[in-house]
Amino acid sequence: MSILIKNGRIITSTLDFEGDLFIEGEKISALGKNLSVKADQEIDASGKLVFPGGIDPHVHLEMPFMGTFSSDTYETGTRAALFGGTTSVIDFILQKQGHSLYEAFNEWSGRATGNAVGDYSFHMAVTDFNEDTRKEIEALVNQEGITSFKMFMAYKGALMIDDRQLTGLMTEVKKQGGMVTAHATNGEMIDFLVAKFKEEGKLSPLYHYLSQPEVTEAEASGRFADIANYTGCPAYIVHMTCEGALNAVRNATRRNQNVFVETCIQYLTLDASLYDKGFESAKWVMSPPLREKKDQQTLWAGLNQGLVQVVATDHCPFFWKQKEMGSEDFSKIPNGHPAIEHRIELLYSEGVAKGKISLNKFVELTSGNAAKIFGMFPQKGTLSPGSDADIVIFDPLKKHSISAKTHHMNCDYSAYEGWELTGKCEKVLLRGKVVIDDNLCLVEKGNGKFIKRNKVSGKI
Amino acid sequence: MSILIKNGRIITSTLDFEGDLFIEGEKISALGKNLSVKADQEIDASGKLVFPGGIDPHVHLEMPFMGTFSSDTYETGTRAALFGGTTSVIDFILQKQGHSLYEAFNEWSGRATGNAVGDYSFHMAVTDFNEDTRKEIEALVNQEGITSFKMFMAYKGALMIDDRQLTGLMTEVKKQGGMVTAHATNGEMIDFLVAKFKEEGKLSPLYHYLSQPEVTEAEASGRFADIANYTGCPAYIVHMTCEGALNAVRNATRRNQNVFVETCIQYLTLDASLYDKGFESAKWVMSPPLREKKDQQTLWAGLNQGLVQVVATDHCPFFWKQKEMGSEDFSKIPNGHPAIEHRIELLYSEGVAKGKISLNKFVELTSGNAAKIFGMFPQKGTLSPGSDADIVIFDPLKKHSISAKTHHMNCDYSAYEGWELTGKCEKVLLRGKVVIDDNLCLVEKGNGKFIKRNKVSGKI
Amino acid sequence: MSILIKNGRIITSTLDFEGDLFIEGEKISALGKNLSVKADQEIDASGKLVFPGGIDPHVHLEMPFMGTFSSDTYETGTRAALFGGTTSVIDFILQKQGHSLYEAFNEWSGRATGNAVGDYSFHMAVTDFNEDTRKEIEALVNQEGITSFKMFMAYKGALMIDDRQLTGLMTEVKKQGGMVTAHATNGEMIDFLVAKFKEEGKLSPLYHYLSQPEVTEAEASGRFADIANYTGCPAYIVHMTCEGALNAVRNATRRNQNVFVETCIQYLTLDASLYDKGFESAKWVMSPPLREKKDQQTLWAGLNQGLVQVVATDHCPFFWKQKEMGSEDFSKIPNGHPAIEHRIELLYSEGVAKGKISLNKFVELTSGNAAKIFGMFPQKGTLSPGSDADIVIFDPLKKHSISAKTHHMNCDYSAYEGWELTGKCEKVLLRGKVVIDDNLCLVEKGNGKFIKRNKVSGKI
Amino acid sequence: MSILIKNGRIITSTLDFEGDLFIEGEKISALGKNLSVKADQEIDASGKLVFPGGIDPHVHLEMPFMGTFSSDTYETGTRAALFGGTTSVIDFILQKQGHSLYEAFNEWSGRATGNAVGDYSFHMAVTDFNEDTRKEIEALVNQEGITSFKMFMAYKGALMIDDRQLTGLMTEVKKQGGMVTAHATNGEMIDFLVAKFKEEGKLSPLYHYLSQPEVTEAEASGRFADIANYTGCPAYIVHMTCEGALNAVRNATRRNQNVFVETCIQYLTLDASLYDKGFESAKWVMSPPLREKKDQQTLWAGLNQGLVQVVATDHCPFFWKQKEMGSEDFSKIPNGHPAIEHRIELLYSEGVAKGKISLNKFVELTSGNAAKIFGMFPQKGTLSPGSDADIVIFDPLKKHSISAKTHHMNCDYSAYEGWELTGKCEKVLLRGKVVIDDNLCLVEKGNGKFIKRNKVSGKI
Repeated sequence: MSILIKNGRIITSTLDFEGDLFIEGEKISALGKNLSVKADQEIDASGKLVFPGGIDPHVHLEMPFMGTFSSDTYETGTRAALFGGTTSVIDFILQKQGHSLYEAFNEWSGRATGNAVGDYSFHMAVTDFNEDTRKEIEALVNQEGITSFKMFMAYKGALMIDDRQLTGLMTEVKKQGGMVTAHATNGEMIDFLVAKFKEEGKLSPLYHYLSQPEVTEAEASGRFADIANYTGCPAYIVHMTCEGALNAVRNATRRNQNVFVETCIQYLTLDASLYDKGFESAKWVMSPPLREKKDQQTLWAGLNQGLVQVVATDHCPFFWKQKEMGSEDFSKIPNGHPAIEHRIELLYSEGVAKGKISLNKFVELTSGNAAKIFGMFPQKGTLSPGSDADIVIFDPLKKHSISAKTHHMNCDYSAYEGWELTGKCEKVLLRGKVVIDDNLCLVEKGNGKFIKRNKVSGKI
Repeated sequence: MSILIKNGRIITSTLDFEGDLFIEGEKISALGKNLSVKADQEIDASGKLVFPGGIDPHVHLEMPFMGTFSSDTYETGTRAALFGGTTSVIDFILQKQGHSLYEAFNEWSGRATGNAVGDYSFHMAVTDFNEDTRKEIEALVNQEGITSFKMFMAYKGALMIDDRQLTGLMTEVKKQGGMVTAHATNGEMIDFLVAKFKEEGKLSPLYHYLSQPEVTEAEASGRFADIANYTGCPAYIVHMTCEGALNAVRNATRRNQNVFVETCIQYLTLDASLYDKGFESAKWVMSPPLREKKDQQTLWAGLNQGLVQVVATDHCPFFWKQKEMGSEDFSKIPNGHPAIEHRIELLYSEGVAKGKISLNKFVELTSGNAAKIFGMFPQKGTLSPGSDADIVIFDPLKKHSISAKTHHMNCDYSAYEGWELTGKCEKVLLRGKVVIDDNLCLVEKGNGKFIKRNKVSGKI
Repeated sequence: MSILIKNGRIITSTLDFEGDLFIEGEKISALGKNLSVKADQEIDASGKLVFPGGIDPHVHLEMPFMGTFSSDTYETGTRAALFGGTTSVIDFILQKQGHSLYEAFNEWSGRATGNAVGDYSFHMAVTDFNEDTRKEIEALVNQEGITSFKMFMAYKGALMIDDRQLTGLMTEVKKQGGMVTAHATNGEMIDFLVAKFKEEGKLSPLYHYLSQPEVTEAEASGRFADIANYTGCPAYIVHMTCEGALNAVRNATRRNQNVFVETCIQYLTLDASLYDKGFESAKWVMSPPLREKKDQQTLWAGLNQGLVQVVATDHCPFFWKQKEMGSEDFSKIPNGHPAIEHRIELLYSEGVAKGKISLNKFVELTSGNAAKIFGMFPQKGTLSPGSDADIVIFDPLKKHSISAKTHHMNCDYSAYEGWELTGKCEKVLLRGKVVIDDNLCLVEKGNGKFIKRNKVSGKI
Repeated sequence: MSILIKNGRIITSTLDFEGDLFIEGEKISALGKNLSVKADQEIDASGKLVFPGGIDPHVHLEMPFMGTFSSDTYETGTRAALFGGTTSVIDFILQKQGHSLYEAFNEWSGRATGNAVGDYSFHMAVTDFNEDTRKEIEALVNQEGITSFKMFMAYKGALMIDDRQLTGLMTEVKKQGGMVTAHATNGEMIDFLVAKFKEEGKLSPLYHYLSQPEVTEAEASGRFADIANYTGCPAYIVHMTCEGALNAVRNATRRNQNVFVETCIQYLTLDASLYDKGFESAKWVMSPPLREKKDQQTLWAGLNQGLVQVVATDHCPFFWKQKEMGSEDFSKIPNGHPAIEHRIELLYSEGVAKGKISLNKFVELTSGNAAKIFGMFPQKGTLSPGSDADIVIFDPLKKHSISAKTHHMNCDYSAYEGWELTGKCEKVLLRGKVVIDDNLCLVEKGNGKFIKRNKVSGKI
């Protein structure tokens, strides 16, 4: 099976031409002006952008939580991702404290296998680092191709590891050729504030926001960078939201350190004024919370400074009914919001169309950098011959709006309801197959494959 | 005329595959695995790297100086560049104080036209900013495609402009869609130290080094960034050498500013211990001077942090006879050294082969970033179909050594004499033509074309 | 002649007791609880604070300017200072470019001698540093006791010296045991903005403010600190107004440097909203201009951090008629405002009474630190036996308001008209003599003496 | 009983005169030139310095530790302190986890009462912050005059509290008018390194040093400052040793925060080269360990910058026999060294005599600042009439050397054996009584009194 995409504007961070892209089987075969090849299928991409399928390295699908699960399964979640141009996701396996890493790996693999519609990989979240789990890391890296290890500096008693474990984890992960990623907020301070607000009867979603002030993230980001620098381990901070945290990374550059930074689309586009809506604000209860306008400015600047390399989503949707578990107590509101489908279109519309970032940068942020950082390049994240033919054909002029009525995520509200966007994914290909054609998904669950990733060096 | 490069490892910062590259006329036409095209000529690139022809955005050819000229003409200089895989250079037009910008433009164009062997563009060095020269900027940008304007914070009375002129220059250049680049050293402090050392009878090349301490560069880099931030003008610092200066740029990131930074190959590979060789040290008398090991570490880190985007040369060779003008007085030694030919091979050997930077980063640093920053992308600096077929076929395993006896620059000494390198440019193509084949240059003077550049936004 | 001050609360930064202070002749003789001495005169200070007479190290009396003079003479200015508890001032001798330092010294001495009512010293403002003026510094330090040398980084063509001169000046001053103080604003940028606004017809006092943005002060403060650090010269920044500038000094602490900082009472108490009053805003046209609320917060914090050591005034009054010279052009408004009389009462009322600073800190800021920094300790600035009996007896509870109708400065408007203050100078002694008794000045012109100062080390 | 000290050079940070000091009962009564008073006793201080008795706010006397106690009792320790000019100490009560604060208070009071020779106060080290201990703070502040609360960021399981407890502690202490002080090192990282070295069989004292790298202190100092800033609580970092930690405080100044800093005499005078002596290095096993020369430079600079306000000792001596508990395992070596006796003489000799700090600064560092910071001013830490007559009569020219053979601390080795010093305490007075006369101590145990301290504001 071969496909010829013709006359598109083909874009990566180093490609920019009007012409053709030829696919044979699952792989890109050729790029060129007027390619003279015979294809089983031709797609006219005139007036369209053609760029690599997106990689969202921060999603939570079917995540077990408080007796329930985040509402998108591997099927619904990766399908919604495809509608939004994201062809690969990296989900988080959560080790259960007291249990092995492989046990969790098997559990997560079990849920994903045969269900995912798009491609996926896993980060391993180490929630209990000890001699036993230390020994599992080598196999995970070398046999399973899981080369990134997440740790939480918050959620004590459930997910958090302390700095001793973190130092040990980094020492081992560096040795094995992997990377450590962090949820960098000071969970101890947050726990204090949550308890304090609850004691004071302050129970609305607003207090979720107020219990995670900027300092909790700035402090932990600096601490994580410090330990990474001492151990020499490649390091990556997930879902960064604020100036204080980015400044911690900027300061770290002075000692010649390089810490990778991911922000999420919501932190670039939404702000804390949304916490002023009573319980409706539960829609945006996530951790870290939305921040201020000045933080948005910092993050957009960080993208252009090359200090923030990735725009992800931290997609973790819950139905309104699930959110209502916390109607009397913000600390019981499941954290997260639905976003996996909108990342690319929002970043294009708010970033490229409004002149905040270049088109080349846009491709780096949505796919290229994540592929390099996480050991998937050049298989994923680019339009290089030989690479997987994961491709978005994008109409840069198409206007549309976001609504829970029309989105494909398994969630009954939208965090961006009514937003008017410029630019839309028209067709999406995954490994050489058209999987999205306008509003149709042409493949079934089980279509998605697990991506074994390579070791990483921390240099891209 | 068409050429098919077969079976190479084709590399940019987003491409990485083994396969073929097809050229039609002056342009790249297609990239692919096993391209089935008929070509007038085939080049077997098995085992070779194939990457974009280099761009050296900082060279001084045939530069008038102290009654003489830098020793490489447009012919010899661009030819040597081609031997080293650099297919495009950007030279500096130096306005003469009291004269117009166009007068200098015409003088420089006159020297280059018909002589250059490789492609070239110009930065306009504004040494006298006033109402008249202000008015010339619009035409230079829009009609001549000269979109970058250099200014000197040193060399008072000859090249330096003061901060008032700089503020005015930035205001105008921003308005016209250009960029301001700076030789950022505090010329006043340097003049003080030069005079002091001379008064004290300290006249050897060592005192050239000591008259330009780190602070002179750190201070001026911060000041340039401050004024750029106030005016909002895209800004670029040339030939950065030291930690103090890069820290000034790192500090500027805290206010969400982005200042582009260029270092030169010598600052990554040579250090100030070379000033301990009596008058022989004149070989390395350049401004700024070589620095310390800790500064090298900072610069290599800066490359990986994305805070230093370009590796150039500041190529400005002089014959030993010319250097000897300063045998009794370091301040009379013509500043500069021959490097245009070695940039790419040195960066590969010291950077990629030694694991300090990735291969993708190497391509960004030698061509891709300069093309984007200076408004030549995607015509130059990439391997995108439709782009100029400026290509290096590079043997990554070939060992060779540097010597004045074998280099092609018009200079009777080498600053890197005896260095053993890994990796060598084997063939070089410029706009679809093989111009270098091993040790042969296949084209004559006049082969090089002037590159009209686009406006720039300061976002890449 | 002896005086016994009884039962006051006697305060310096290390003294704090209720008791007595005994004066013999011009000197403090003893401090104690219930001193049993016989005095020619007794003053009951019950319920009063007794602290050292203030030192204002930044005043401009009878300063020649635009064909006229600042409106307070040595007589009226130092008398007003005494009313406000300031017993010593340091004025600025302004060298005339092309002329010698001693010529200016003689001119200034001529104006002050026989006229000053309070004690005074001079800083020497070097506006033309060359081989001749360099040689005068030794004598000024050793013979005249002038150990601080001011330089202007603004007012090109009149007062400004360039960085070459500054480096030379610092080298020489350090050698002679003196200190360099700076008006640290980037005069080149200011000149650009002034010219730009005038060209655009923007001529009101508001544009005075807008022509000296924070960056002009931040940049120059950093540059001054850089050069001071390189030369090793003790350094002091006058009239600091803003966060950016203090941050430059804070950054300098990282390289183990110590730069002394002076702010002025107006920058702690007034802000830029006063520039919104049409031409009336001319009352506050001074350089640097008033800043923002956030800058006030920074300066108050700086006092408590020990990073801002002195609160001065930059007293430089002009009659409204003189201000009106700039009614059509802000750049012709004489710069400065009347403040010499209010510094201590304002700082007490706004600082101590409102809990922003401690009483001990208040004494450091108004007298002790200036005495140490400028080589007058322990003769001045403290209540140590043997020290000059310069003393304020202060009623901490007395309410009063400021008005041009009641102030003693030779100026027909007040910059603080109607301000209600808590705390008032009741009696002031200078060298053992009561010079102010409520609203009476008991001494005549000529009472003030020139203070020869000691060498300084930059360590206090 | 009255004493007249005659003809000394009397020094505080604001006093500096040659003359007399008169004492009546326990208090200073008067200061003056040629005081004409009748005294029961006269002391001729000609040629001597007379300054306030030192305050060492960081000592550990008779501290229970590993089944034994630090070797100086309240008797021997405070007596040795007196020999060295230190008339007041602040010791640390260590709460036992699971027990109340008052229980520990009573235990410590029991040991000190009737035994101390010099005056003393306590910090309360909170090692278990919970609802019960929270409620005790008010009484400790208001009834016992204990206004400073120490917390440990290291020694998990014994002394350490987590950031949640710290946030809670600061919130409460601020409310009650106290201050929180911190042992700021990242205990988790240290625990990791200790375990790692032990596992690797690296057991000598050198590995004590290597298990507490600079980052552990820099990180924790920044974190402590962050939380203090968020809560608004006055904050003080004990025994700071290094550049990284001071830079954390310097950075905090940018947000207008003021964190007090104490260093100890050993960090100014000794360095890590002492860890190269095999097990003899156990003499200097303390936490944090000695650092590098560059750190000494930073600390001396910090003193002059006003950013380090106090020089203490962290006196915690152990006999060599006790040190030998760790002869096979560095982690079993009791931490601490004998220093209480040498602080003032070392700081004078290394600081004042060598020109690193001024004499006025010396007095601030050894007594005045600690008195103000910890709520004892003006009772202690100055020579103000009405203040306790705690006085050192110091011979600035006397040469002597340090030896375990001659020191008065209850410890059989000296950490400064053989050091030659300039300047010696000749006589020491405590509350109006001569307690040390050359090599004789004239008072018995029980002479020392507990000092009730005042609330503090964090502003001095």
